[in-house]
Amino acid sequence: MGEQHIERRARLAARIAAEGADALLVTRLVNVRYLTGLDSSNAALLVPAQGPAVLATDARYAGGAEAVCPELELIVERGTAGALTGRAAETGLTRLGFEPHDLTFERHAELAALDGRLTLVPLGQQVEALRLVKDEGEIAALAQACAITDRAFEAVLPLLAPGITEREIAVALERHMVDLGAHGVAFDSIVAAGPNGAVPHHHPGSYRVAAGDLVTMDFGALYDGYHADMTRTVAVGEPAGWQREIYELVRRAQQAAVEAAVPGAETRDVDAAARDMIAAAGHGAHFPHGLGHGVGLQIHEAPLMGYDKTGKLMDRVPITAEPGVYLAGRGGVRIEDTLVVRASGPEPLTKTTKELLVL
Amino acid sequence: MGEQHIERRARLAARIAAEGADALLVTRLVNVRYLTGLDSSNAALLVPAQGPAVLATDARYAGGAEAVCPELELIVERGTAGALTGRAAETGLTRLGFEPHDLTFERHAELAALDGRLTLVPLGQQVEALRLVKDEGEIAALAQACAITDRAFEAVLPLLAPGITEREIAVALERHMVDLGAHGVAFDSIVAAGPNGAVPHHHPGSYRVAAGDLVTMDFGALYDGYHADMTRTVAVGEPAGWQREIYELVRRAQQAAVEAAVPGAETRDVDAAARDMIAAAGHGAHFPHGLGHGVGLQIHEAPLMGYDKTGKLMDRVPITAEPGVYLAGRGGVRIEDTLVVRASGPEPLTKTTKELLVL
Repeated sequence: MGEQHIERRARLAARIAAEGADALLVTRLVNVRYLTGLDSSNAALLVPAQGPAVLATDARYAGGAEAVCPELELIVERGTAGALTGRAAETGLTRLGFEPHDLTFERHAELAALDGRLTLVPLGQQVEALRLVKDEGEIAALAQACAITDRAFEAVLPLLAPGITEREIAVALERHMVDLGAHGVAFDSIVAAGPNGAVPHHHPGSYRVAAGDLVTMDFGALYDGYHADMTRTVAVGEPAGWQREIYELVRRAQQAAVEAAVPGAETRDVDAAARDMIAAAGHGAHFPHGLGHGVGLQIHEAPLMGYDKTGKLMDRVPITAEPGVYLAGRGGVRIEDTLVVRASGPEPLTKTTKELLVL
Repeated sequence: MGEQHIERRARLAARIAAEGADALLVTRLVNVRYLTGLDSSNAALLVPAQGPAVLATDARYAGGAEAVCPELELIVERGTAGALTGRAAETGLTRLGFEPHDLTFERHAELAALDGRLTLVPLGQQVEALRLVKDEGEIAALAQACAITDRAFEAVLPLLAPGITEREIAVALERHMVDLGAHGVAFDSIVAAGPNGAVPHHHPGSYRVAAGDLVTMDFGALYDGYHADMTRTVAVGEPAGWQREIYELVRRAQQAAVEAAVPGAETRDVDAAARDMIAAAGHGAHFPHGLGHGVGLQIHEAPLMGYDKTGKLMDRVPITAEPGVYLAGRGGVRIEDTLVVRASGPEPLTKTTKELLVL
């Protein structure tokens, strides 16, 4: 990935110059990873508008940094942001950009006091703007995460029977993902059965699946830093009429949203493609969250997709589409895919069937 | 835990009054959890110096909030900090404390612009100061996390043989912890075998254990929000003289640090108990990290223990003691326990033997 990181830093340098800053101090760890390949819990990167970038990390990650980005000058220091701010001042930079959405109030005050020659300039989400559109290498990693997710779902289906607990299902999903090559789980799995299905973010617990329950599973694999996100709802035993009805409604709404996810579409219109259909069926109040979100090096990233969100989709932007209907005390349905917005049409990366599985 | 949360908020309110503020806006999620019991990815808490606290979270967590802290007024809103800042202004508060180590520069600017009647006051680590000394309920949760960690280690020992990869060992440890009742892993497990043992924060990879390797495993279970942290180094096959020598050195250094961890001890003296012994053996440069850290609702929390750290240990403060010796290109040893500083003497919570296991 060395080449890609060099190219990303070059594009960032051009943005920094356009903002009128001399450099950007990148402190958000996932942004440092995007720009260098280094996955660590303590690192910062100084990207000048002109000239080579400088990486700082502590002794624990120094070897890793030398392995993944040997082309970068490396400062080994625990106080990474302070070390790079000092370096910026020493090399005569005066307008130092920072990430105001990452740097805390306290850290900002410390850095601002370090050297009187520097002016700290909040630069907004410059790296996130680059991260929005993925390159094919990133999409391949995401596709691999999604393929593992699909296969874990398939592996767990035989377990879905009366008596199993939500927690056991969640553990089985997570195990299978790791067995299938995941580097971890993309987020804490949600498994919500029976009445718990009415809680969008239910923590899987000791509830035992009963015949007649819908079971919603929202989970995903992490692969090479990229996060898959998929939800399926299945029926254990023959579903009642109301269950089939909301399932079919959510399935059609999700399909409509996927089809609306084309380059140039307003994100709120993609949300509306699902939301309007659910509202028309009288369930508008039962869909209390946004349609979905971007995915990549973070499980939730730009673009956020909701009725109150603005912005247009673009080619090579991976998103989720995850409408749901939640009936308090009774249960719920959510169906979600991770897909890539493409000029050639939406490309689903999670491929598990969306027909109602009756187990 | 309801009673405990009420008592914690009362102690916090007294601190807020002592700081001359009208209220504290708690935005750090782990602090919100400590004060309410609510484990969520979006919540904030307004704790006035006088009068009842107000919790804000979004619709996903509203049901959970009603279950764990029904005594609190709840505002259901996505923009939790903004909603509570508005509430503070409406109710006539003027000096609103915030957590400068948590609030970003950007969020602070947004809140400061919300209402001209309010002055935002950085209040430092008020909640962290409360969290430092644990109550017995917290220690019991941590002890359970440590017991699961011990048992997972024991369960994995039979797998440690030539040919197994670091990654397979890590997965087995994590699986066993979940099987044994962990709510998750406390952090990404480190498994470092052979020459990789020289890298303190090595990511477990495809390296296969060979006869004659030392294998360092640094891992822990998460239980009820509390984080265990244990490291053991074992020998696969008969160890060479240098391996036995650094093992014994680290074992004695770790033991010395544990014995020094008494109420009133300076944290740097506890670090020195291990560091001086390692330096005296000529390995000072091969122990490049601090002795350890506090553990609790976070895997790394106060007190940090290193040669450059200040502060005294207190009764009922859980810490880790984890010295190591790392020889580049050859291998390394680290031994770590989670223990509680007690007036009656250090209480180890991880209890796995520290004799060198030769497998």
